[in-house]
Amino acid sequence: METEFVKIVREHDLIRPGQKLLVAVSGGPDSVALLALFRRQAQLLGISLAAAHLDHGIRRESAEDARFVKDLCAELGIELICGEADVPALAQARKEGLEAAGRQARMDFLVQSAEAHGCDKIALGHHRGDQVETVLHRLLRGSGVSGLAAMAWQRDRFIRPLLGFARERLLDFLVEQRLPYRLDASNCDPAFTRNRIRHQLLPLLRSFNPRIEEHLADFSQRVALEEDYWRQQESQALAAARRPCDSGLRLDRQVLLSLQPALRIRVLRRALELARGDLLALGADHLEAVEALLFKPRPQADLHLPRAWVGRRYESVWFRPSAPEEPEPFDFSIPGPGSYALPDGRRLEFLLTAAGREAPDALEFSLEDVAFPLQVRSFRPGDRFRPDGDGGEK
Amino acid sequence: METEFVKIVREHDLIRPGQKLLVAVSGGPDSVALLALFRRQAQLLGISLAAAHLDHGIRRESAEDARFVKDLCAELGIELICGEADVPALAQARKEGLEAAGRQARMDFLVQSAEAHGCDKIALGHHRGDQVETVLHRLLRGSGVSGLAAMAWQRDRFIRPLLGFARERLLDFLVEQRLPYRLDASNCDPAFTRNRIRHQLLPLLRSFNPRIEEHLADFSQRVALEEDYWRQQESQALAAARRPCDSGLRLDRQVLLSLQPALRIRVLRRALELARGDLLALGADHLEAVEALLFKPRPQADLHLPRAWVGRRYESVWFRPSAPEEPEPFDFSIPGPGSYALPDGRRLEFLLTAAGREAPDALEFSLEDVAFPLQVRSFRPGDRFRPDGDGGEK
Repeated sequence: METEFVKIVREHDLIRPGQKLLVAVSGGPDSVALLALFRRQAQLLGISLAAAHLDHGIRRESAEDARFVKDLCAELGIELICGEADVPALAQARKEGLEAAGRQARMDFLVQSAEAHGCDKIALGHHRGDQVETVLHRLLRGSGVSGLAAMAWQRDRFIRPLLGFARERLLDFLVEQRLPYRLDASNCDPAFTRNRIRHQLLPLLRSFNPRIEEHLADFSQRVALEEDYWRQQESQALAAARRPCDSGLRLDRQVLLSLQPALRIRVLRRALELARGDLLALGADHLEAVEALLFKPRPQADLHLPRAWVGRRYESVWFRPSAPEEPEPFDFSIPGPGSYALPDGRRLEFLLTAAGREAPDALEFSLEDVAFPLQVRSFRPGDRFRPDGDGGEK
Repeated sequence: METEFVKIVREHDLIRPGQKLLVAVSGGPDSVALLALFRRQAQLLGISLAAAHLDHGIRRESAEDARFVKDLCAELGIELICGEADVPALAQARKEGLEAAGRQARMDFLVQSAEAHGCDKIALGHHRGDQVETVLHRLLRGSGVSGLAAMAWQRDRFIRPLLGFARERLLDFLVEQRLPYRLDASNCDPAFTRNRIRHQLLPLLRSFNPRIEEHLADFSQRVALEEDYWRQQESQALAAARRPCDSGLRLDRQVLLSLQPALRIRVLRRALELARGDLLALGADHLEAVEALLFKPRPQADLHLPRAWVGRRYESVWFRPSAPEEPEPFDFSIPGPGSYALPDGRRLEFLLTAAGREAPDALEFSLEDVAFPLQVRSFRPGDRFRPDGDGGEK
């Protein structure tokens, strides 16, 4: 197993000789195995090590976990960075669940610790079982293809060297090395979906196919590889559809309509991701609603989604975090050329020019046809104009 | 439900007014519901109907099934085409399983019946439950992404108008319409994987998410849409990599190496599909072996796969159903210009020419440097030549 571990670290270029690694240690079997593997192979890999543990204050056992990790690191002779966080308070402040708040606090703590102690990489203990449970969890919740992509071996400063190992192999290694570990009490409570997946669903799936975990892990690796390709295709198509605009994103409707449907849906999702910053709480239904906006005969329509606004304006589709504010209406008369303040802070510059510029979005009047004072006001429902003098009006 | 049924038939353009439809009827609930729905909506849809039933001779009940379908069609006033097949004998002759042989016999019978009775389309009774069970079955067996693509609403002459309906809705419709049906005895035997999926796995999945079947059906629809895009991309990349050759397929190694890895694996699979005619019995391991051939430093290597041969020859990769035959060795002397038979049936034309043609694959000799008789023989291991006179040899 140790040979395989070193091979994986090298093949995926997870850390290089001369670098310093921070190992995240909760005290559970996965992170203890991770720490021990790196401890035994640090010399061969030419790296130096430190460990980090966050006391999250969620369960009563958290102080005991911290004590356990301290003893373990002392015994292994590894520098330990300890931190504390009041996750329940954070969760309340951010209106998040305990799990999400705990994950965020842990990540923040790890990144700060790595900075403070000059660590180049941070190792996480996720193994194949976590990968498989995540895939099943997402599938059960109704995820699309993208959601089934495997966790990355490496992302930013984080590495996951155990992704290729089954939980059972890590446990065997711990027994072999006579290493102690702490069991998370919540792991044994089948009320949590994650634990029901582990203790009810996976055993049933294994009765269909004893190699199911290997298959599902391979499956998610293949999906991750295909997602890389999709991201390329999405970027290309998005660049082709994008039009200049002040804020948010403006896409050309005709370019979107010309895309293959699967790519189009992905480009719309990507546009929403860019406008909002993430995809949380967006589902397939929302994307279908955006797509419907493109195909509707109505040339102007608005769509209000969670933390996003999508507006169709003829051949443009706008994506913004929120609907643009209605401009404050105005109505005043001007005696002649000059500079006039509008109620929203903008200014209207009115000047006379010799060189006219008639264009689809500009209209030229001869000074003889204009009589001051002029009345200047914002659009009102019911206003009409004749674009071309051809008898039609809008 | 009937309104929804008509809407689906029209939206997916499954059959048009004036056409004749053949409905495949086994006697089970799905096909009875399918027949009854079309019977009730035939006038609205402007189509005419016939039914077809194959007595497959697998179980003792098959004669009773045939009798049941005859009575049902007589009562509904629908023309019935009956056929018989000895599926166990066919399976033995073709060395296939009963299920595969039965499916093939049924498809052949339906296509022939449609031809003989002037039917434009053939309706099959697959519903959402079948779709979901297929996805789970494939996932359990270790399928890749492509294997999870939904059945098509329409393919060739076959249509599947019930794909959007859950089994329960079809059963409710049958009760409402007081329609009888036959239950396949094999459906209740949990020894078959398919039935274990239905009676053990799906109930557990529903306890995680009551809408799991809807989710999985949507998931497979999205995969099918994305597969369409992949097929386009594969075709483009394959066309770019393809080089002329006599038989099988020859691809340019450099073009293959330049592809994004997920696309490359798919192009290799497509090449194998074209060389063999199908992808049966090919797995991810085989594809990885073909890919390894591209990256190996050895410029010449052969790979023998089930019903396929892949050969790397420097910058070319060949795909064939079987390895090319080794040419019969020859060794003879020729007294001068003329035409000489080779043992494999080809001929060697030897002539003198005034206009020389020196090229990377052709060598020019002056007649003064050549002394007859010349010895002509095929390649032997150990033969060496100096390509450029620059001191190097091969």
